[in-house]
Amino acid sequence: MAKLQQLNDLVAGELRGNPDEEIHRVVSIDQAQTGDITFLSNPKYLPLLKNCQASAVILSPEVAAPEKNLIITANPYLAFAKILTFLQSSKTTGQGIMPGACVAESAAVDESATVYPGCVVGENVKIGAGTTLYPGVVIYDDVSIGRDCLLHAQAIVREGCRLGNRVILQPSAVIGSDGFGFAPDGSGYYKIPQVGIVVLEDDVEIGSCSCIDRAALGETRIRRGTKLDNLVQIGHNVEVGEDCIIVAQGGIAGSSKVGKHCTFGGQMAIAGHLTVGDNVMIGARGGATGNVESNQILSGLPLMPHKQWLRATMSFTKLPEMRKEMKQLQKRLEDLEALLQED
Amino acid sequence: MAKLQQLNDLVAGELRGNPDEEIHRVVSIDQAQTGDITFLSNPKYLPLLKNCQASAVILSPEVAAPEKNLIITANPYLAFAKILTFLQSSKTTGQGIMPGACVAESAAVDESATVYPGCVVGENVKIGAGTTLYPGVVIYDDVSIGRDCLLHAQAIVREGCRLGNRVILQPSAVIGSDGFGFAPDGSGYYKIPQVGIVVLEDDVEIGSCSCIDRAALGETRIRRGTKLDNLVQIGHNVEVGEDCIIVAQGGIAGSSKVGKHCTFGGQMAIAGHLTVGDNVMIGARGGATGNVESNQILSGLPLMPHKQWLRATMSFTKLPEMRKEMKQLQKRLEDLEALLQED
Amino acid sequence: MAKLQQLNDLVAGELRGNPDEEIHRVVSIDQAQTGDITFLSNPKYLPLLKNCQASAVILSPEVAAPEKNLIITANPYLAFAKILTFLQSSKTTGQGIMPGACVAESAAVDESATVYPGCVVGENVKIGAGTTLYPGVVIYDDVSIGRDCLLHAQAIVREGCRLGNRVILQPSAVIGSDGFGFAPDGSGYYKIPQVGIVVLEDDVEIGSCSCIDRAALGETRIRRGTKLDNLVQIGHNVEVGEDCIIVAQGGIAGSSKVGKHCTFGGQMAIAGHLTVGDNVMIGARGGATGNVESNQILSGLPLMPHKQWLRATMSFTKLPEMRKEMKQLQKRLEDLEALLQED
Repeated sequence: MAKLQQLNDLVAGELRGNPDEEIHRVVSIDQAQTGDITFLSNPKYLPLLKNCQASAVILSPEVAAPEKNLIITANPYLAFAKILTFLQSSKTTGQGIMPGACVAESAAVDESATVYPGCVVGENVKIGAGTTLYPGVVIYDDVSIGRDCLLHAQAIVREGCRLGNRVILQPSAVIGSDGFGFAPDGSGYYKIPQVGIVVLEDDVEIGSCSCIDRAALGETRIRRGTKLDNLVQIGHNVEVGEDCIIVAQGGIAGSSKVGKHCTFGGQMAIAGHLTVGDNVMIGARGGATGNVESNQILSGLPLMPHKQWLRATMSFTKLPEMRKEMKQLQKRLEDLEALLQED
Repeated sequence: MAKLQQLNDLVAGELRGNPDEEIHRVVSIDQAQTGDITFLSNPKYLPLLKNCQASAVILSPEVAAPEKNLIITANPYLAFAKILTFLQSSKTTGQGIMPGACVAESAAVDESATVYPGCVVGENVKIGAGTTLYPGVVIYDDVSIGRDCLLHAQAIVREGCRLGNRVILQPSAVIGSDGFGFAPDGSGYYKIPQVGIVVLEDDVEIGSCSCIDRAALGETRIRRGTKLDNLVQIGHNVEVGEDCIIVAQGGIAGSSKVGKHCTFGGQMAIAGHLTVGDNVMIGARGGATGNVESNQILSGLPLMPHKQWLRATMSFTKLPEMRKEMKQLQKRLEDLEALLQED
Repeated sequence: MAKLQQLNDLVAGELRGNPDEEIHRVVSIDQAQTGDITFLSNPKYLPLLKNCQASAVILSPEVAAPEKNLIITANPYLAFAKILTFLQSSKTTGQGIMPGACVAESAAVDESATVYPGCVVGENVKIGAGTTLYPGVVIYDDVSIGRDCLLHAQAIVREGCRLGNRVILQPSAVIGSDGFGFAPDGSGYYKIPQVGIVVLEDDVEIGSCSCIDRAALGETRIRRGTKLDNLVQIGHNVEVGEDCIIVAQGGIAGSSKVGKHCTFGGQMAIAGHLTVGDNVMIGARGGATGNVESNQILSGLPLMPHKQWLRATMSFTKLPEMRKEMKQLQKRLEDLEALLQED
């Protein structure tokens, strides 16, 4: 529970109404009751505001303010997130290495960390303060993990990889699996040992069942603040810059370098050995087959400006009738040509 | 082992031949021997029937019946499935919590359930009668799981999620990972806490390494009887209706609602915040970028009627020659125009 | 450490320079220091050779040889791989069944195998000499695993499946999950029991979170030497021939048969019940919707010769202007027709 004044201070908003109003929960606008705070970020839900029972509402200054307790802020969605985080945070104290966990003697696990049953932690591993390993997490030898990380159930970090602070691995995320490298050897393939590592910098989040392959030599690196959704594939020796967003089921093939502040839609792909600049947006299912300059919004396979792609896909559905029209044009032209030849 | 009469009764078929024939196995038509029952559902395999050594065959009434022991039924594939299930079922009795499993004291595990070694079950979890947790399954706190569920190795159910009866999770299925929600915060991103849950209703099946994200607020829900193949992504706050089929590697982005009796092909995608009606079929690799009305068969990106898509893709392969023809038309037209101007 | 002569002998190259040069590491050309060996396989990196500090370089005969210690060989990349493997190999002796592993009494685990803590091995399992099961691996009953296999953390092999020798499973690979088979049963679906198995032949590698479904009846088979990248889906009863390469996030639907020496790019798909010949290359995101003859290089959905696809996709981006041009042609043609009618 918190008082409205306290929540307003947290997000540096403008409070209207009763600063002592007691807030217990954050819920969506259609479900809010007395004791709840809700928010309006999508104008589509504006009509719901009228009958909303919430004790307070987070609003942007542009919205005509109703007769309610309000927190006015330029970014209601961000304020909602911060207030929700505040009301959720339960300050669990570290529980240390719990019975049923298997931790090598040479591992250095901070006493404020938590290692749940079913975890296996290898030789010479370092685990920082406040970090939690949920059940079934496996950490291979020589891994280092920073402070306040959350590794969910069955997440795996293979040998030698390094995680910064506040890194989150969703369940079954795989960090440091072998890169896919084989040298043709007559009719078959010879496996290239993958002896590099993966580095996840501070504040990186990796989704469930996403796979970040270790480098062949050197490192695969995901830079500070970048977030990957579920089932994403990152090939060996890839670098992804700061504050990127990669939506579910996308893939980046080996050795490609991506700049910062990029946003990639679902099922997108980037071929290997490419360079993508900063502030690049690639739409869902887009596919980069060549280098990409900074500051573009692109879609399609091959990539093209998003607006051009929208027009091209609309034309695509018209292709059969275009072919028909073309045949008719040819026929009419032939008729004219024949007519003129007769002259 | 069963007698043919018993199997015929099970599927309410029409028996021809020896009701006392002993049946030991169900196998495919090309491998059947004495003691086996087989089935013919694809007419392509009709020629194999002649030399088939099976002790009995399941057939539809349309097929010219050979001189064999037969079960005649309108749906041989369904009858095959029921007979196979019957002959397989081994009525294992629950083994309880086995040594090497780690179950919180506050968890209520029915005595007829089975919890294999390597499982970790959290606080206040409820597990119903006849349910099996294979090795390495992790159940977070406050989860409820119904009767006769099968959770295969390494399946994960995160905090607060609810599974109905007869739910099947294939290995490494992830239920309740965080939805992918971040609020832009200057140059970076602020994580939106994902405090909702996932509900899987009765008879739902989730494939290996498929990920069902928990809701930001409220719930993500997969309704009764819906089956998901492997490596499928379901975003936060999605709802999928009853009796849907989602083939491997498909994805549904956050907050989209899908009706009942839908069938989605492999690698299909549905963008976020959309509504899809009932009885919608989307072909493999199709992509919904807008709302979809009920009772349609669609393909492509953007979606279009499947037949139109087939024609459009055929035209697509002809695009380069269309461009060439268009250039020729332009040239001929210019010639004509010049000729007429001369006049 | 090794002497250069020893490494040259290993790859049957031609040594130039000092055979006694001591080599400690294999690194990439931009990071090489004294004591390192590096290689040049991509001519793009030729300029780096001049200032390279490596103690030796692996080169192909076509490259103008610098004044350095050299191993000259027709395939520098393969030589690099072999030398790296040699310098890496650490000949760990088997550690047997470690404390914290749970192995059924009826399982036969070779004494030179290693089973890490957190593994669960079922009844009647056979595990061959030199095979390693990393933490959290789950082996169901009646599985057989050959010699010198590597099963990484959380890999799962379900009941009855068979792995040959030197098979590698990356973390969370799933072998033998249920095939996706349901018989329509009124409005819902009846699950077809999947009672077949998966066979992985010698030298197969399966990537992280890749899923190989067990057959409904019979077997799903991946033949000798075939390598699958991460997040790949293989449906029930699929057969993949020898020495194939399937890049990340590709999928092969049920009952399709693929020949040998095929190479499939990322996010590729093959529909069900198809036959694909030998030596077929399918580009990234390609989709097979019909049978494919041997010895082709194909791309697109539907598949077409790769060069045709490149031209078609280039034309695709021009579609909107093609439509505009077509309208102009129509207009000009109408004008001409009108003009001639006036005559």
